[in-house]
Amino acid sequence: MFDFTFNTLKKSIKDKQSWLCVGLDPDPEKLPAGISRDPEGVFQFCTRIMEATAPHSVSFKVNTAFFEALGPDGWECLNRVCEFSKKNFPGHFLIADAKRGDIGNTSAMYARAFFTAMNFDAITVAPYMGSDSILPFLKFNGKWVIVLGLTSNEGANDFQLNGKEPLYEKVIQRVSDWGTKNNLMFVAGATRPEYLKRIREIVPDHFLLIPGVGTQGGDLKQVLKNGMGREGALLINASRSIIYASAEKDFSAHAAAEAHRLSAEMKAVLTEL
Amino acid sequence: MFDFTFNTLKKSIKDKQSWLCVGLDPDPEKLPAGISRDPEGVFQFCTRIMEATAPHSVSFKVNTAFFEALGPDGWECLNRVCEFSKKNFPGHFLIADAKRGDIGNTSAMYARAFFTAMNFDAITVAPYMGSDSILPFLKFNGKWVIVLGLTSNEGANDFQLNGKEPLYEKVIQRVSDWGTKNNLMFVAGATRPEYLKRIREIVPDHFLLIPGVGTQGGDLKQVLKNGMGREGALLINASRSIIYASAEKDFSAHAAAEAHRLSAEMKAVLTEL
Repeated sequence: MFDFTFNTLKKSIKDKQSWLCVGLDPDPEKLPAGISRDPEGVFQFCTRIMEATAPHSVSFKVNTAFFEALGPDGWECLNRVCEFSKKNFPGHFLIADAKRGDIGNTSAMYARAFFTAMNFDAITVAPYMGSDSILPFLKFNGKWVIVLGLTSNEGANDFQLNGKEPLYEKVIQRVSDWGTKNNLMFVAGATRPEYLKRIREIVPDHFLLIPGVGTQGGDLKQVLKNGMGREGALLINASRSIIYASAEKDFSAHAAAEAHRLSAEMKAVLTEL
Repeated sequence: MFDFTFNTLKKSIKDKQSWLCVGLDPDPEKLPAGISRDPEGVFQFCTRIMEATAPHSVSFKVNTAFFEALGPDGWECLNRVCEFSKKNFPGHFLIADAKRGDIGNTSAMYARAFFTAMNFDAITVAPYMGSDSILPFLKFNGKWVIVLGLTSNEGANDFQLNGKEPLYEKVIQRVSDWGTKNNLMFVAGATRPEYLKRIREIVPDHFLLIPGVGTQGGDLKQVLKNGMGREGALLINASRSIIYASAEKDFSAHAAAEAHRLSAEMKAVLTEL
């Protein structure tokens, strides 16, 4: 089994000349032509997207909600997608975008679900419940926790950006003591690139997982300008703009083209690093 | 299909003379004698606990983490537990303790998972991502959203209790505008009963789901003294102290006895209401 460290992940980015993380949010209603609208179709869709985009990316992010919505066969499908990724693309950093977090003994169960029952490299975790909701995930050797810092959605204004010392700053500051740059990242949305500068003052080295490029409208250039930090430790996620690039039978070619377009834009910056 | 409103839920509490919600956190390692340590055993365990405690309670709370940890058969088991509860105890308010919450289109998928693919009456939701992470759950007619306010764990000190106007107050204040007392509740931990008074100043009428009585050490009398509000709208949860009351074959009798003990303590107060 291959475990990711800060350095192996950075090397993978340098070798691939890409920070791209491809987000798999398979909505049955948006599946392209030729794909059945059931868990088997979702599996086919995800695997074809992974095959098409793997050359341009270093990471896959699987959104658990879209699998849970399919019922018990959806959870089975989530398992198969995880296995497929690990078997065929072991160099890809595999994220369960699950936004979990609960009291200690319950978080330990969630960690077991994603790190033991399945073999994800990382899970996204919500920080509202504090240290004992996050620490159980950090006890798994070679596994990563990605804590919500400043999210990409409109609702980030409600609590995260609230206060003189905004909540997202407190969260990133405080949580950064609980893990290391070898097992802890933060979510920092691309839709508010001006805040990435402030985040880099707090955590200049840690990896940031940056959603919101693509359909949500985040600007890649601004993200790179403000979010680079000292190490260039970034995973930049695009989901819908890639996976739904076309609704036709040749969707995987269009997904590959969009992934390639984004990674080429990244490459231009990466070669200067 | 029977939908719960504020009034039907209150009536159920009055008729039953109990605020008790029984929490199902089935840890395979803690299953009692005679129960197999696999998803089938977990199903048997949960259903026997439900049958034993139903006379003393008005609600069941199913903790999704413990099912996810079992792999795909665990999700199937979660579905069966939900079906069993709805079929055999339709008067019990059925909560998915899932602590979900994500950007709008993803929260909509979680809502579909728990309200459509399964038939839970309510789901617990984490507020960190703000309004668009919560509103999709509130769009389901007859379904309830239970938003984390002040949780029962030690980690609540990290962010929720932080600041001059603490975060949990902001959350309860703000979120209370997004739904009504017919589709929105808040989690308020029993381990900090002194804060229940403040919470009742903000939401005197809304239902509160109160975990932390039992193993976590919350004091039932203090909870009732401070948390009652104008309507006595409470669901008081105990999980481990009931379901693991005995590790022997007669566990269900011990679970019933502990549920009865708690509900009798509640009854003494309820008859005075």
